[in-house]
Amino acid sequence: MGLVNLTVAEQLAVIRRGTDEILLEQALCERLQLDRPLRVKAGFDPTAPDLHLGHTVLINKLRQFQDLGHQIIFLIGDFTGMIGDPTGKNAARKPLTRDQVLENAATYKEQVFKILDPERTEVRFNSEWTGALGATGLVRLAASYTVARMLERDDFSKRYRTGQAIAIHEFLYPLIQGNDSVALNADVELGGTDQKFNLLMGRELQKLNAQPSQVVMTLPILEGLDGVQKMSKSLGNAIAIADPPAEMFGKIMSISDDLMWRYYDLLSFKTAEQLAKLKRQVGGGRNPRDVKIELAKEIVGRFHCAADAESAHENFVKRFRFGALPDHIEPVRLTSDESLSIAVALKRAGLTASTSEANRMLSQGAVRIDSQRVTDSDLRLTIGFEGVVQVGKRRFAKIFIDSIKNC
Amino acid sequence: MGLVNLTVAEQLAVIRRGTDEILLEQALCERLQLDRPLRVKAGFDPTAPDLHLGHTVLINKLRQFQDLGHQIIFLIGDFTGMIGDPTGKNAARKPLTRDQVLENAATYKEQVFKILDPERTEVRFNSEWTGALGATGLVRLAASYTVARMLERDDFSKRYRTGQAIAIHEFLYPLIQGNDSVALNADVELGGTDQKFNLLMGRELQKLNAQPSQVVMTLPILEGLDGVQKMSKSLGNAIAIADPPAEMFGKIMSISDDLMWRYYDLLSFKTAEQLAKLKRQVGGGRNPRDVKIELAKEIVGRFHCAADAESAHENFVKRFRFGALPDHIEPVRLTSDESLSIAVALKRAGLTASTSEANRMLSQGAVRIDSQRVTDSDLRLTIGFEGVVQVGKRRFAKIFIDSIKNC
Repeated sequence: MGLVNLTVAEQLAVIRRGTDEILLEQALCERLQLDRPLRVKAGFDPTAPDLHLGHTVLINKLRQFQDLGHQIIFLIGDFTGMIGDPTGKNAARKPLTRDQVLENAATYKEQVFKILDPERTEVRFNSEWTGALGATGLVRLAASYTVARMLERDDFSKRYRTGQAIAIHEFLYPLIQGNDSVALNADVELGGTDQKFNLLMGRELQKLNAQPSQVVMTLPILEGLDGVQKMSKSLGNAIAIADPPAEMFGKIMSISDDLMWRYYDLLSFKTAEQLAKLKRQVGGGRNPRDVKIELAKEIVGRFHCAADAESAHENFVKRFRFGALPDHIEPVRLTSDESLSIAVALKRAGLTASTSEANRMLSQGAVRIDSQRVTDSDLRLTIGFEGVVQVGKRRFAKIFIDSIKNC
Repeated sequence: MGLVNLTVAEQLAVIRRGTDEILLEQALCERLQLDRPLRVKAGFDPTAPDLHLGHTVLINKLRQFQDLGHQIIFLIGDFTGMIGDPTGKNAARKPLTRDQVLENAATYKEQVFKILDPERTEVRFNSEWTGALGATGLVRLAASYTVARMLERDDFSKRYRTGQAIAIHEFLYPLIQGNDSVALNADVELGGTDQKFNLLMGRELQKLNAQPSQVVMTLPILEGLDGVQKMSKSLGNAIAIADPPAEMFGKIMSISDDLMWRYYDLLSFKTAEQLAKLKRQVGGGRNPRDVKIELAKEIVGRFHCAADAESAHENFVKRFRFGALPDHIEPVRLTSDESLSIAVALKRAGLTASTSEANRMLSQGAVRIDSQRVTDSDLRLTIGFEGVVQVGKRRFAKIFIDSIKNC
């Protein structure tokens, strides 16, 4: 809130940080000179219950606008969420029911209000005006753009050229998203760089509806833990906002030093000056690991609390620097009529997703029983077995094997 | 009605006549063997108040199905009619209001029931189920087909290749039409050859909805009076169902002998045997004009009555064989302060659409005053002029020129 008295130039410096592109910056300047808060919109499809840190790149930028005194709009794309997307890589995903969408939306709100001030956030659902369009209104909306221009969108043109199917309703998504900006009278819309076409659609439709065209800001897509692919739950490289403190801490500590600076840029609330100082320190010989710990504590503190961050830190230091086990290990009771192969036990205990992953972990030397490495995939655990089993760095369980007859 | 006891083979012979294509004829055979009337659908967009003989090619085929005891469905595309088509050649056409659509639909019904038995015709409006889809349902419908396959449609692929705009909602039309077949549980759909893609869409969508795919029948597009272009009100080569008897009769008499046989095939209710006989007679020396008179009388009789057909015939014979004027000529009173040029008088009397058409008619020798040909475009008609003015073969007016002061 302390920022609301900044000059336009000072506001611009805050807004620009970490953005990929601003279209048009001149228009943004002019709007910032208006004597009113700007309406700043970002949309999220509630297709999964969990948000991850990739989503928060946008949410952090919304928070900055909020701190500057602007009116931010957290738009939940419940209309598109209910429809589902039967094409491409999401072929298997079923359309969500209204209840699932509302449930996910509720979780979203709970998660984003760890970053945003709920009192000053306008939360909207795009079914409000899209549903009201009816079949007729949607046809009229579809009349406002041409097939040829839609096929200029990068992913569409690539898929069309290479013979990958584009379902016709995919052409309606950008139009529905653009129409959201009309309905909300948006001054600014934020989105990932992969959203640029859809964001620009808002400008077109606002023009058709005699509204000033919104300023479009794209933000980089955050890479996942691997540092290469987009952060995504389905790629298994995500840090969920809902991850428990120790897991979130451990995941951040697992990233490369390069990726650490990227995460600082896109996720940290430190100022540009504070970041420059950290880089100078590492350049001068400070251990990057300690700087990574600072990041991990900031992030865990944001989504949990300072005390959680502190104990996640202590726990991490104990486990990895001194080879100790975590304070609490989940007990898991398995049953058998005689014995279980190690792979089946790992899978049943939830330490691996499948027996084939279990065998892969065994052959890679990533499995330990009571701290002793195990690589023999023929090993069988018999009734009465009791031991701490570890897979990789962060998966632990205390396994007990009971006779099936005791059940 | 006498036809309901025909065998499947006999029914097929009636159904096949004049069709361009039946997909699949085998499936049609099988359906005809079912122990129930087939549901036979044809759709019409109520975008103009008048139907013309081109439309009746389909309606005649519906009538044949009706005579065979099947359930015909006259589908009025009021949903699409209300939306309008802002692209291509129809760019200037405004979307119709609900009232206009209902008014046109009422006129349509009145006109088609000169051919169809209203008691046994199911009249439906596609807004019934399309409106109920809502925005969500329409998006789901759009999800059932791909952009690439839609672009395979002849006119779309041509327009896309040549850079002519295709608005996205045009991709929704075939889907909405196909969905009509699902909603109506159609066994057969009829359409012009230019409708083939849309008719086949019904088959696809029925399959997706676990319905047996309809049989698709295309019928030729009727040429207009010029024998070359598609009959169309806007091309000025149409015979409207609502044309008065004399005009309808005269227009039919104006067509070429070749076109006459085409019209016999597509418009006459004579049997195949009766047609073959007429052809033999002309081959043997009968004057084709007399055969054309038979056609004109049949058509006028259908849309008016036998007596009207008879008097249109007599009138025609009088006028053209013996050079006489029609029984009734419209009096038109024009005013002038001194005199009017012949071109202005023709235009004001409604005999030509413009003064330039008037001058063209004059130079072609197509203008007569009191049966005398007039070619001098400098001729002026002064106050007090009174005379029968004729343009071409069928336009007459009795013009009086009054002083403007008398008004």
